[in-house]
Amino acid sequence: MAKGITKRSEDYSKWYLDVIDAAQLAEHSAVKGCMVIKPTGYAIWEHIQANLDRLFKETGHVNAYFPLFIPENFMHREAQHVEGFAPECAVVTHGGGKKLDEPLFVRPTSETIIWSTYKNWIQSYRDLPILINQWANVVRWEMRTRLFLRTTEFLWQEGHTAHATEKEAVDETLLILGVYRTFAEEYMAAPVFTGIKTEKEKFAGAVRTYCIEAMMQDYKALQCGTSHYLGQNFAKAFDVTFQDEQSKVRYVYATSWGVSTRLIGALIMMHSDDNGLVLPPRLAPTKVVVVPIWKEDAERAAMKQKAVDLTRDWKGRIPYKIDDRDQYRPGYKFNEWEKRGVPIRIEMGPKDVAQNQVIVVRRDTGEKIAVPQYSLLATIEALLEKIQKDLYARALRNRDANTFTCDEYKELIERLESPGGFFWVHWCGQGACEEKFQQDAKATIRLQPIEDGGEPGACIVCGAPSAQRVLVAKSY
Amino acid sequence: MAKGITKRSEDYSKWYLDVIDAAQLAEHSAVKGCMVIKPTGYAIWEHIQANLDRLFKETGHVNAYFPLFIPENFMHREAQHVEGFAPECAVVTHGGGKKLDEPLFVRPTSETIIWSTYKNWIQSYRDLPILINQWANVVRWEMRTRLFLRTTEFLWQEGHTAHATEKEAVDETLLILGVYRTFAEEYMAAPVFTGIKTEKEKFAGAVRTYCIEAMMQDYKALQCGTSHYLGQNFAKAFDVTFQDEQSKVRYVYATSWGVSTRLIGALIMMHSDDNGLVLPPRLAPTKVVVVPIWKEDAERAAMKQKAVDLTRDWKGRIPYKIDDRDQYRPGYKFNEWEKRGVPIRIEMGPKDVAQNQVIVVRRDTGEKIAVPQYSLLATIEALLEKIQKDLYARALRNRDANTFTCDEYKELIERLESPGGFFWVHWCGQGACEEKFQQDAKATIRLQPIEDGGEPGACIVCGAPSAQRVLVAKSY
Repeated sequence: MAKGITKRSEDYSKWYLDVIDAAQLAEHSAVKGCMVIKPTGYAIWEHIQANLDRLFKETGHVNAYFPLFIPENFMHREAQHVEGFAPECAVVTHGGGKKLDEPLFVRPTSETIIWSTYKNWIQSYRDLPILINQWANVVRWEMRTRLFLRTTEFLWQEGHTAHATEKEAVDETLLILGVYRTFAEEYMAAPVFTGIKTEKEKFAGAVRTYCIEAMMQDYKALQCGTSHYLGQNFAKAFDVTFQDEQSKVRYVYATSWGVSTRLIGALIMMHSDDNGLVLPPRLAPTKVVVVPIWKEDAERAAMKQKAVDLTRDWKGRIPYKIDDRDQYRPGYKFNEWEKRGVPIRIEMGPKDVAQNQVIVVRRDTGEKIAVPQYSLLATIEALLEKIQKDLYARALRNRDANTFTCDEYKELIERLESPGGFFWVHWCGQGACEEKFQQDAKATIRLQPIEDGGEPGACIVCGAPSAQRVLVAKSY
Repeated sequence: MAKGITKRSEDYSKWYLDVIDAAQLAEHSAVKGCMVIKPTGYAIWEHIQANLDRLFKETGHVNAYFPLFIPENFMHREAQHVEGFAPECAVVTHGGGKKLDEPLFVRPTSETIIWSTYKNWIQSYRDLPILINQWANVVRWEMRTRLFLRTTEFLWQEGHTAHATEKEAVDETLLILGVYRTFAEEYMAAPVFTGIKTEKEKFAGAVRTYCIEAMMQDYKALQCGTSHYLGQNFAKAFDVTFQDEQSKVRYVYATSWGVSTRLIGALIMMHSDDNGLVLPPRLAPTKVVVVPIWKEDAERAAMKQKAVDLTRDWKGRIPYKIDDRDQYRPGYKFNEWEKRGVPIRIEMGPKDVAQNQVIVVRRDTGEKIAVPQYSLLATIEALLEKIQKDLYARALRNRDANTFTCDEYKELIERLESPGGFFWVHWCGQGACEEKFQQDAKATIRLQPIEDGGEPGACIVCGAPSAQRVLVAKSY
């Protein structure tokens, strides 16, 4: 266990905050509920952004930017939406030294301001589809905050698309769900379940909310991304219609979808260990750290030079750092880079150099390998890919080993409490039974499968008929 | 002149808005003073961001993110700062359905929230320097707004650095001024003067504000970026000290610097013409548009295929579009891409194809060149570089031809009014004389040279001694 990091087994919540602190990812700010994302944490966000942005663009989306402020009357146009979001909004009442005629809400999400704009952009079927994404900050007043997972202000992307038909809009919703799943699996090394939220858990204003849910190391669920089919709700609220090819006037169909800085919380809770942060190589800002080692002062200059020589070809291929600071001992440096989650550490002492080799250390397993210098770059590139795959496999094993079917309500509640896990249970579809999970175990239905096809059964709460199982878990 | 675009000679302000509208860059939103940045406009911002971000990182800076909100008492810590900014702030008074104990200001700039954070980050000289940049939205309540140039909310980057010595902080301020100058000249094709703002024009809270100023086509100045040496003002306001190498406790030295979406306004006003937007190739999201032309329906499929064949090797080398829409005629398409500022258009009809050539048309000059297909990619790459250089040269000629020295006050006021221009004049350094420019011609001192060395003279207003000339102009 690293100094200053609580063990997971002792206090998982404390461990989470210790890992963030030790890796210098973020901290609480002087503004209640808002965080400061520190350079190392922000660099992870930049990697998330760059990769997601590419995936969005490859699927035909473009970026734009809409105002931070939303006039109060816009919030009130869609009944479910205002009910869900207005209570958690920050409200601007004064501007330029004067009281405003109409208060402005700081956006908690941008459906209303965007659909008020789309009204002017859409007249004909020729103006459709609109496939726009926005990278932005949003504000939702939170009473109990936790760095990355739940903060009053957070950074996110929000896609807002407009379509001529229901089918096209649903296809878009599922396309993005697929993009999120791909990103989670291939970049975050995070296995996820995909599914549909219940009526109670869906987005305020959506017809249907799709989601990806991941299991953390404490067996709790974390919702990592949502993709909403909004039907014509916002088109009706803002009177957005178009003439179809037969000159018939119709309301436009909508989707919206988003992921946020919460993903950094998921990365931490999924892969890190008692020594600190562990990052999947594809999202690690620094992938390799090289630590030259010397005992005698006379060796120092030569070893520093050797580290430079060793990495001469790496520029543009692998983001790396050389840690040749004089004031710290090698052990201190190893510990520091472990806490910061750099996937590969290279130790290089005079004896290694004499044998034309270096010692390569994996952050995830601690495994040490002596590698000849001539094949180092190729070895590292292959090892980074292997670490990426191994992290995914380990997370998948953890999830599979802690995902169960359960048919006894009492057993479900006990097991949700300890040791926890994901539970596939039969549910009749009634809100009252859904409430029971919350009341008895502070658990929720995380998702319902997208495609029917499970065996039918009896609701685990009331025994009424159930067409398929749903996933129940405690969550963040 | 393109349909729907007012001529510059008729009404320059209207022309500016028409260009934005025709190129679909941005529009006013339902929220007073805030704009919607449309996909084409936002893509230009993405290019500005990507290039500036690289330049910042190459000079040792990292990104981070600080809260949107600033507690009221933070704003009041630095006397000049609060006086300059508080009157134009948006204020959040309610959050989560309750009145807040202390109002929160939506950041107009982030010195205060950042220096309240740096206080905890800095103890020793070993913690310095801190070289952080933030990409963010900020809000300054504006009465009279103009798309991109002055909006209540805008996007920008703001660098905030902390240093152990005055020299290091001043060097940083000048380093960034150099980065801004390089970016303006090499990417925006914008010649700029660099200099120091007067006391009256400097940033509220700065010791000294450096700036880059560019001339628009109507001979007015536009401030394109500022780099502030803040001395110890914010360190003192937030009690940020460090132990130096001799264990002496000292206040930290600060800089801050920023450019904003205003740069898109500069691009438009500097290079565009009566046919619409003209973009320097390095910042153009789409650099080439290929328009296949057919007369007979029978030719259509073959010409479309030819356009695809022609561009087969371009992916990853040149961002391009093929406009093979059936419902529009070639002339309509040419006009549309001209309005959108794509630097190079390729026209390709059956006759051209028969001769294994295409017609390459420059957006900036209208020049048409027949180019053999086998050398097309190389020709285009070279031509894009040439257009970039030519735009700079043209802007420089325009500036040089309209920059004068002037020693007669009456003449200065007349010429500022018409035809306008940049005027190097002697100034005694007194605020009263500076006020006169404003009163008599709505002009300001844009900058004072960084290095003394001009010939001494007599103040153009009062005749008192002046060590050097300053630059006076009307501005946006």
